[in-house]
Amino acid sequence: EEVDKLLALKKELETTYGVVDKKPAKETKPKKEDKPKEKKPKDDKAAETEDGENNGGGFVLKTPKGSRDYDPEQMAIREQVFKKIVGVFKRHGAETIETPVFELKETLTGKYGEDSKLIYDLADQGGEQLSLRYDLTVPFARYVAMNKLKQLKRYHIARVYRRDNPAMTRGRYREFYQCDFDIAGEYDPMIPDAECVKIVSEILTDLEIGKFVVKINHRKILDGMFAVCGVPEEKFRTICSAVDKLDKMAWEDVRKEMVEEKGLDPAAADRIGTYVKLAGGMDLVEKLEQDANLMANKSAQDGVKAMRTLFDYLAAFNILDTVSFDLSLARGLDYYTGVIYEAVLVGAEVGSIAGGGRYDDLVGIFSKGTTIPCVGVSIGVERVFSILEARARANGGVRTTETEVMVISAQKGLMAERLALVSKLWAANIKSEVAYKLNAKFLSQIQHCEKSGIPYAAVLGESEIKKGVVVIRNTATKEQFEVPNDEVVPRLRALLGRSA
Amino acid sequence: EEVDKLLALKKELETTYGVVDKKPAKETKPKKEDKPKEKKPKDDKAAETEDGENNGGGFVLKTPKGSRDYDPEQMAIREQVFKKIVGVFKRHGAETIETPVFELKETLTGKYGEDSKLIYDLADQGGEQLSLRYDLTVPFARYVAMNKLKQLKRYHIARVYRRDNPAMTRGRYREFYQCDFDIAGEYDPMIPDAECVKIVSEILTDLEIGKFVVKINHRKILDGMFAVCGVPEEKFRTICSAVDKLDKMAWEDVRKEMVEEKGLDPAAADRIGTYVKLAGGMDLVEKLEQDANLMANKSAQDGVKAMRTLFDYLAAFNILDTVSFDLSLARGLDYYTGVIYEAVLVGAEVGSIAGGGRYDDLVGIFSKGTTIPCVGVSIGVERVFSILEARARANGGVRTTETEVMVISAQKGLMAERLALVSKLWAANIKSEVAYKLNAKFLSQIQHCEKSGIPYAAVLGESEIKKGVVVIRNTATKEQFEVPNDEVVPRLRALLGRSA
Repeated sequence: EEVDKLLALKKELETTYGVVDKKPAKETKPKKEDKPKEKKPKDDKAAETEDGENNGGGFVLKTPKGSRDYDPEQMAIREQVFKKIVGVFKRHGAETIETPVFELKETLTGKYGEDSKLIYDLADQGGEQLSLRYDLTVPFARYVAMNKLKQLKRYHIARVYRRDNPAMTRGRYREFYQCDFDIAGEYDPMIPDAECVKIVSEILTDLEIGKFVVKINHRKILDGMFAVCGVPEEKFRTICSAVDKLDKMAWEDVRKEMVEEKGLDPAAADRIGTYVKLAGGMDLVEKLEQDANLMANKSAQDGVKAMRTLFDYLAAFNILDTVSFDLSLARGLDYYTGVIYEAVLVGAEVGSIAGGGRYDDLVGIFSKGTTIPCVGVSIGVERVFSILEARARANGGVRTTETEVMVISAQKGLMAERLALVSKLWAANIKSEVAYKLNAKFLSQIQHCEKSGIPYAAVLGESEIKKGVVVIRNTATKEQFEVPNDEVVPRLRALLGRSA
Repeated sequence: EEVDKLLALKKELETTYGVVDKKPAKETKPKKEDKPKEKKPKDDKAAETEDGENNGGGFVLKTPKGSRDYDPEQMAIREQVFKKIVGVFKRHGAETIETPVFELKETLTGKYGEDSKLIYDLADQGGEQLSLRYDLTVPFARYVAMNKLKQLKRYHIARVYRRDNPAMTRGRYREFYQCDFDIAGEYDPMIPDAECVKIVSEILTDLEIGKFVVKINHRKILDGMFAVCGVPEEKFRTICSAVDKLDKMAWEDVRKEMVEEKGLDPAAADRIGTYVKLAGGMDLVEKLEQDANLMANKSAQDGVKAMRTLFDYLAAFNILDTVSFDLSLARGLDYYTGVIYEAVLVGAEVGSIAGGGRYDDLVGIFSKGTTIPCVGVSIGVERVFSILEARARANGGVRTTETEVMVISAQKGLMAERLALVSKLWAANIKSEVAYKLNAKFLSQIQHCEKSGIPYAAVLGESEIKKGVVVIRNTATKEQFEVPNDEVVPRLRALLGRSA
């Protein structure tokens, strides 16, 4: 009855004065204006500045340059994304491992070429020289070698560290998540490779972030192509890294870089130009098979043969519509030895959203004498987060808790009764909250439900307690009804769609 | 038919020769003898040594001192543990955040007393001075202050870093998980505090790691007790840290430390001795309320009053049987200001498995002028992992994948057919694997199912393909039956207990 009276009063007040009591009973979300700067679109700027907030105590209150906190809303999105991605990995029978955040410095030495300067070193405090991990691939190779594994299909989701200039690379942080899936082991050609492409396709489909295409190429085709176009062998890598820029630069500019900066014969550049325009599917495989000039090169021939096998398997997987054999795809990393791939969103200028390839020699660096061939893929989850965060903002935010029921008092006090009720709900695995106030305002508690998206309230007042009932209130519809004490749990479970 | 013939053959061979073909088709688990040293009971020894495996390439193949990899089996256990713990946090309406693995060095400075020497610093590579986080509490306080939050109920599960000597502290690593739950905000006395104790109780119950007790005390009672026993105020802290050793040392030894090392009047020590022997529940609250000497001290009076309120709420939560008001509980950290608690397993010598308390002044250090009272609890998950890993070993290990179906060929080849079938299963969200071999041995594939605990196999042979059927085989019972192609998915889903 108290409840009814109070709700009637609330309605009256709302009609008269507009919304009453804007303050929620509990505010567990950072206020908009208080959010960390990194949250806003001008991310890079914020990350770039060394200025933080001075707390008046003489020191600066901030996270380190290029790093950020994840607030509850970002974490809720992150959790959804990881759940989907891990779901795909598990669907494919993958195990998972974790490695230390730091490695011996020498473990990382010589693995990243010029980028080695971006590695974070730990201070020498006596003992080993340590560095923060730069990616998850080198620790994976170290793990496989150290444990003398012959086979491993694992995923690894964790943060990695690069002392990049966060101002120079948009949306790039110095501390960011990687989400890797790799298959180590000696297997028949292209089967694990095809599964990696299939996994990318499944993940991007499940994430519902828009239409995508997985570009695929083969390092041996690139090498063969460079050879038959007349690139001197010592220039393969530098020309390859110029080709790698075709996703951001026009051919004319890439050609210029090849000829003017890298000293390539213009005729060779033009021959490359005719190849890198080619893209397709099995039709392109067949076209290249007809290219006698290219096929005269052993490397190219092996690569094209591998692509035919791969496309047979991709056809069996029924994902030909999401892949493109693209001769302009080069990928920056040196360690790739076979197929390479990169997924991009169609019509979006966000860069690649996943990428990987085969690297058969990396484990061998750690286990002299034997090596274990590997193929893998890394999902660019930070870009996925950005897309989904923007979507969430546009849709009015996401819930940051999963609370199903708020135990509410219709009047002052009743603390022990409320705690006993919420305890009963917890015991029944119903996600529930109660205000931490002896005399919580009824309207504040109701508004906390509305604001936090808590679907039901369980309301107690003196008269309800006397009658041995609880009032269940639906937050959205404002419907409410009395339920005898011993039926509260089954009724709420039924309302929440739980099995009896 | 091929399937039947092969299985009959296998049976015959097994009867004649014992188990045939011990090698599984795919081995994704590290072999027992290849497991990292850290896995075995002699953990500390392994972590302590600076020796690693030399790969013959002139450098040492190991993880940094005091750190370790988590292998798939450890990760499977870790995932189960986190799922249960996070389930409890979410049941209580908690949000989650993540903070960078490093903080500005000055953020950590002056927060850990003598232990500050254990902080890992990053090298000075130009820019800010950074340190790895030492716990999750200081980053939490920094986050609350930086975002000017008035309220936050959050959990945070992440690794922290301490340059401790891993040899000195058994089972202690330099990189280890913490699992924290904290409530920040100005609320009525003891309500959030009671919820923290309730959460410890729920988590330890859900983890099923044995009978436990949550010891509870109050800093103000300790201070009051010291005062009325005649401890000079400047000795409160050092005497408190002596009391803290009562869980590992006999009273006689603690008394000796107080008197001989810390110069306490023996009569004062004896008076303390009579108090720290006391433990109980509401009966102890009442006993202390009758202690006129103690009640004459304002601090003790406030503390005892708070304990009465707390025990009222713990009674409402119905967890009086798992808590003990224990005057010998002191807790090491300086920053506690109110209730403190620590959970221990009854009859197990593993030390505390959870602990926490109220710290009302920490946020204020980061936000001069205002502070936000906090109370929280940290679950000692590494100890939980150890207990559950030992249990798993005793029970023959845990599954490291969730694979439900292995797509198997009954004869050579059939790669495209197998890939098409496994792809159909993935599309139906059935967790499935296929061997990465063109000519996988049938028996090896069957044995992979047995070894990895994959409950079903979907078997394809030429004749099955011709008939348009798949043979479904139950790994445990070895029963098998033919299913038409278009009924494979619904039949498997039904067998796996999925809803249609």
